[in-house]
Amino acid sequence: MIGQPAPELDVAQWFNTPEPLTIAGLRGKIVVLHAFQMLCPGCVRSGLPQAQRIAALFSPKEVAVIGIHTVFEHHEAMTPVSLAAFIHEYRLGFPIAVDRPGGDGPIPRTMAAYQMRGTPSLVLIDRDGMIRRHSFGAEEDLQVGAEIAFLLTQARHPEE
Amino acid sequence: MIGQPAPELDVAQWFNTPEPLTIAGLRGKIVVLHAFQMLCPGCVRSGLPQAQRIAALFSPKEVAVIGIHTVFEHHEAMTPVSLAAFIHEYRLGFPIAVDRPGGDGPIPRTMAAYQMRGTPSLVLIDRDGMIRRHSFGAEEDLQVGAEIAFLLTQARHPEE
Amino acid sequence: MIGQPAPELDVAQWFNTPEPLTIAGLRGKIVVLHAFQMLCPGCVRSGLPQAQRIAALFSPKEVAVIGIHTVFEHHEAMTPVSLAAFIHEYRLGFPIAVDRPGGDGPIPRTMAAYQMRGTPSLVLIDRDGMIRRHSFGAEEDLQVGAEIAFLLTQARHPEE
Amino acid sequence: MIGQPAPELDVAQWFNTPEPLTIAGLRGKIVVLHAFQMLCPGCVRSGLPQAQRIAALFSPKEVAVIGIHTVFEHHEAMTPVSLAAFIHEYRLGFPIAVDRPGGDGPIPRTMAAYQMRGTPSLVLIDRDGMIRRHSFGAEEDLQVGAEIAFLLTQARHPEE
Repeated sequence: MIGQPAPELDVAQWFNTPEPLTIAGLRGKIVVLHAFQMLCPGCVRSGLPQAQRIAALFSPKEVAVIGIHTVFEHHEAMTPVSLAAFIHEYRLGFPIAVDRPGGDGPIPRTMAAYQMRGTPSLVLIDRDGMIRRHSFGAEEDLQVGAEIAFLLTQARHPEE
Repeated sequence: MIGQPAPELDVAQWFNTPEPLTIAGLRGKIVVLHAFQMLCPGCVRSGLPQAQRIAALFSPKEVAVIGIHTVFEHHEAMTPVSLAAFIHEYRLGFPIAVDRPGGDGPIPRTMAAYQMRGTPSLVLIDRDGMIRRHSFGAEEDLQVGAEIAFLLTQARHPEE
Repeated sequence: MIGQPAPELDVAQWFNTPEPLTIAGLRGKIVVLHAFQMLCPGCVRSGLPQAQRIAALFSPKEVAVIGIHTVFEHHEAMTPVSLAAFIHEYRLGFPIAVDRPGGDGPIPRTMAAYQMRGTPSLVLIDRDGMIRRHSFGAEEDLQVGAEIAFLLTQARHPEE
Repeated sequence: MIGQPAPELDVAQWFNTPEPLTIAGLRGKIVVLHAFQMLCPGCVRSGLPQAQRIAALFSPKEVAVIGIHTVFEHHEAMTPVSLAAFIHEYRLGFPIAVDRPGGDGPIPRTMAAYQMRGTPSLVLIDRDGMIRRHSFGAEEDLQVGAEIAFLLTQARHPEE
C-alpha cells in the first residue's frame, strides 16, 4: 500500500486523547501508526517501547504517534477494559484507539483496511496522508528514526 | 514468614495441570511459588522469564514451579479468560493457579495468607513444606539458583 | 563547535581502508566520526555497535562512517598492535584511524582539534564539511538516525 | 577432566592479590576458575560479568573467584600491560593471573593443562581440589549458581 492514501481510522474507542483523532484531521503532520495487541509479546518487548521512544523524541506538533489495538485473536481476552489497565500499567502516554470489530471474521476494520499481516505493525504516513512505510515485526530504531526524519523534511503539497 | 509452614493454596482455577496441586501434595519436592499479575510489567520482564528458566533447568520430579495469579488491582482487566490467552501467548508451560478473590478487599486469599507485598513475589518452600525464602521484586538468577540447590541437598524430615 | 568547519584528521595510521581518508576528500558525503578507545567499556557496549549499525544501514556512497582511536589514557595499553586485534575480534568493518599522539600531554591531536571531552564521542559532519552534531556519551539510535537523515536531505552548497 | 584433580596454576603474574594464589592453597574453598582473553567479545559480554556477579554474591571465605588470562591468539595485542588497563577500566575486583606462555605453540601452560577449548571457559573446583565442572562458552547464571551451591554443601574430605 506504499504510496497510496492512508485509509481513515475506523475505531470504537479512544484513550489518552480528549477527542477522537482522524487521519484527515492530522494532515500536515507525520503520523506514526503503531498497531498492537496487548497480549502480543513482540509488541510488549519491542514495538510499544519503540512507539514510546518516538513519542518522546519528536515534537507532537510535527509527529503524531497513534497506537491502535487491532485485536484479531483472543478477542474475549483483550477487551477495552483490559486494555485500559494495560495502558495504565505500561505508562503509555500517546493516543490509543480500539480498532472496530469486523462484521464477519476475526480481523478488525482498520487492520483490514490497512492490510496488516499481524502485530506489531508500523505504518508511516506523510503530511499529505500518503502511506510511506508499512512493515510487520520488529524494526530498527536507526531506520525508523531516519524514515521519520525524511518525511519531516518534505513539505506538504497544496491540495487541489 | 521464613521458617514457618507454607499456607495451603486457596485458588479458584488451574491451568497447565490435569488436576489441582496442593502444597501438602508436593511434600518431598522443592516448591517454587511465583506470584504474578499478567499486566505487571516487572513480572512480564523479569519474574515470569525467570520462572520459565527454573522450570527448564530443574527436574520437575525435584522442583515444582507453580505460578499463582494474585490479582489485587484492575480485577476486571485480569480475568481468567484473559489469563488463558496470556499463558498461551507467552508460552508458559508450568502449572498456574488463579488466586481466589478475597471476601472483602482487593487482596486475594493466597496472597493474603502468604503476606505478599506485591508482584512479582517469589517463595521457596522446602521438602518439608516450610517457607525458606520470601521476596518481592526482581531477583538475581545466580542467587535463586543457589538457593534452590541448597534446598535440593536437604533430605526430607520424617513426619512424626 | 557546531556550525564550524570540521578540522582535518591528523592521524598516524589507518585500518580497513586501502588509502588514507580526509575530511576534505569526503566533501559531498555525510561523515559520521566515532571517537573511541578500545578499552572504554561504554564504547564497546554502545558506541561501536551503534557505529556498526549506521555503517550497515546507510549506503557508504552517502554516509561515511569513520572510527578514530583517540587514546588519551593508558597509552601503553592501547597501541596500534592491540587495536588491530580488537578490530579483528569485534568484526569492525568501517575505516578506523589512529589519532596522532599529542606533542605534550596525553590528548591526541584530532581529539584536541575537535575539543572532544572523552569517549565515546560522536560527530556528524554535513556534505559541506561543517560540524552539525558533537556529543559525548551514549546516544539514542532513533535520534542519531533522524539526524543523519536530515543531513542527507540537504544538498551540497557550491563552493565559491 | 571432570572428577580429576585440578592441575596447579602455572602463571607468570598476578593482579588484585597481595600474593600469588595456588590451587593447593585454596583447598577447603570452592574455586571458580574463569579463563578469558581481554579481546574476546564473549568474555567481555557474558563471561566476565558473570564472574563479577559470582564474586559479589558468594563469600570469598567460601568461594574463590579467579580469573586467568589465557592468551592463545594475538599474543602481542594482549600483553600484561594491556591487561592491567583492561582490569582497571572494567572494574574487575577478583584476583586475576596471567597464564604462562607455552614453550612451543600458542597455547599457554595452564590452559593446556586444563585442556580448555577456548575462551570463555569456566571450571568449578571443589573443596578437595577436584574438577567438578568444565565448560566452554556462555553459561546460564541459574545453573552456575546451583552448581556452586551444590559444591558448598559438600564437606571437605580428610586427607590421608
